[in-house]
Amino acid sequence: MTKITVAKGDGIGPEIMDATLEILKAAGAELEIEEIEVGEKVYLQGNSSGISSEAWESIRRNKIFLKAPITTPQGGGYKSLNVTTRKSLGLYANVRPCFSLSPFVDTKHPEMNVVIIRENEEDLYAGIEHQQTDEVVQCLKLISRPGCEKIVRYAFEFARKYNRKKVTCFTKDNIMKQTDGLFHQVFKEVSEEYPDIENEHWIVDIGAAKLADTPEAFDVVVMPNLYGDILSDVAAQIAGSVGLAGSANIGESCAMFEAIHGSAPRRAGQNMANPSGLLQGAIMMLNHIGQTEVAEKIQNAWLTTVEKGIHTYDIYKEGVSKKKVGTREFAQA
Amino acid sequence: MTKITVAKGDGIGPEIMDATLEILKAAGAELEIEEIEVGEKVYLQGNSSGISSEAWESIRRNKIFLKAPITTPQGGGYKSLNVTTRKSLGLYANVRPCFSLSPFVDTKHPEMNVVIIRENEEDLYAGIEHQQTDEVVQCLKLISRPGCEKIVRYAFEFARKYNRKKVTCFTKDNIMKQTDGLFHQVFKEVSEEYPDIENEHWIVDIGAAKLADTPEAFDVVVMPNLYGDILSDVAAQIAGSVGLAGSANIGESCAMFEAIHGSAPRRAGQNMANPSGLLQGAIMMLNHIGQTEVAEKIQNAWLTTVEKGIHTYDIYKEGVSKKKVGTREFAQA
Ligand SMILES: CC(C)[C@H](C(=O)O)[C@@H](O)C(=O)O
Ligand SMILES: CC(C)[C@H](C(=O)O)[C@@H](O)C(=O)O
Repeated sequence: MTKITVAKGDGIGPEIMDATLEILKAAGAELEIEEIEVGEKVYLQGNSSGISSEAWESIRRNKIFLKAPITTPQGGGYKSLNVTTRKSLGLYANVRPCFSLSPFVDTKHPEMNVVIIRENEEDLYAGIEHQQTDEVVQCLKLISRPGCEKIVRYAFEFARKYNRKKVTCFTKDNIMKQTDGLFHQVFKEVSEEYPDIENEHWIVDIGAAKLADTPEAFDVVVMPNLYGDILSDVAAQIAGSVGLAGSANIGESCAMFEAIHGSAPRRAGQNMANPSGLLQGAIMMLNHIGQTEVAEKIQNAWLTTVEKGIHTYDIYKEGVSKKKVGTREFAQA
Repeated sequence: MTKITVAKGDGIGPEIMDATLEILKAAGAELEIEEIEVGEKVYLQGNSSGISSEAWESIRRNKIFLKAPITTPQGGGYKSLNVTTRKSLGLYANVRPCFSLSPFVDTKHPEMNVVIIRENEEDLYAGIEHQQTDEVVQCLKLISRPGCEKIVRYAFEFARKYNRKKVTCFTKDNIMKQTDGLFHQVFKEVSEEYPDIENEHWIVDIGAAKLADTPEAFDVVVMPNLYGDILSDVAAQIAGSVGLAGSANIGESCAMFEAIHGSAPRRAGQNMANPSGLLQGAIMMLNHIGQTEVAEKIQNAWLTTVEKGIHTYDIYKEGVSKKKVGTREFAQA
């Protein structure tokens, strides 16, 4: 029995979390759930961080956090809880597998199977912005050698563990010679310690173009935070849908698992949302805590459901799908 | 007769420039050419800017600059001449049309016809980087209100001039609330002055995912410099090839026209390169200086050549192309 912290989040969050927890239970996952409240309600109660100190304690104690999407209110003064959590808990690696389910889910890239490994604490996400004059604002992009070393090493270890053949690095060091240059330099250094794994580097512009055009040419791809944010959405979407992709946020002591998509407030409460992204996050969580058999069982059941053509609206496609279902029906299937 | 400044650049630059100039001449473009030397040779002669003051004078005098790709030597101390030129001449708008030539050029997105309008002077391209400690480096992202106003207004004026229906804006202002927030805010303000043109905004991650997946849903897309760098390569590549796309860099008094791709030193001197990107830049140049009839004539001849299946290696595809040709043969056709 592993105790985990769970947050149901905002928008479609509660629906997809309920569906996910139901599936975990039915499959026999040995989890004790401690629920915390984070996000919109907490913000609007006047807590600009969106999370209480008790909730932090729960996460720090249990070390495993399954989080549904949350909404950050518009306007100044609110910090993104996603980013705060990643940084406060030192979750330096954001792992986002993007694979095709062709022919069961429509995609133009049937062969793709890419894992984006995104640095998760630094870069423009450091959150340091200021108004210089009335008309000029600035944001600081911060890159550190230890930060680069941790993430690049994580990518190569990941490749080794999962028998992946190649690690690709994207940076823009023809322009940002010091910051992105450091990331690239560390990539070169660390890659030498892994002679069994192929390595390559692309400038992010042409690398992104190749990824969007021939994703099957990539395997594991490691990059700074913001490129990883953008290109994991691109990769997930062209593989099938951002609604299908989960994400693991890994640190030295804690880990957080989530869907890569947002809280889609316009679709909330309509039993429309696809729980697959969060479910994929939950499967990564089960693997992380060693419940690999349950993880495999759920993954297979999920694949069977998707292969049977039982699809939620976001991946439903005439001729490919068989049956359009809601969040609840999908989970039951 | 318009006097223009021309630089043949490095790598495949001279070949594609010769091919382009040959086509311009054959079509009756009324141009007087003043050639300058920029790029690798100039750098290696010890001029770390890659351009002499006489060359600057030529560009400033003629105000129209047709530039082949150049190579910036690796290592510190060298500045990207592309970026220096854009900033020194105040070329604030980088216009990159990305359209499908289906069925004549292979693409998964036959309906796409997107123009990326990229802010061209600010953002992380300000080039302000420094080493904070031994292990920490920083780069400054700079966004100004006048900069945002110029580029957003340019995008709406462009849409009006070319009968485009919609302008979309991409930013990441859920994280960069002040910098990208300012860009988005100015977009909202300026869009109100153009009630005849539809406007929309996407967070750049999901916007990029949509652009890579369903580019036909976009028309004109305006964004800060670095996103525009990455996403114009993505858009050009999925439309057919980065090798087919040209770019106009527009300022108040000067303008520079180029291909969006680089100097590909490994392919230099092999008569392999596709001159189409630079030719597209040259066609935009002819339109800019009012030689619209010649521009149209060249565009039609180019389309006919591509439609006949006479393709260089980069777009050659069994079953779609008819004849694989070199740079010179393509230009003659
Ligand atoms: C919601 C947002 C802060 C977040 C990010 O930018 O990292 C999201 O886009 C993601 O990719 O998890
Ligand atoms: C060569 C490089 C400096 C340039 C850029 O980053 O702008 C190029 O990628 C482009 O898009 O024109």
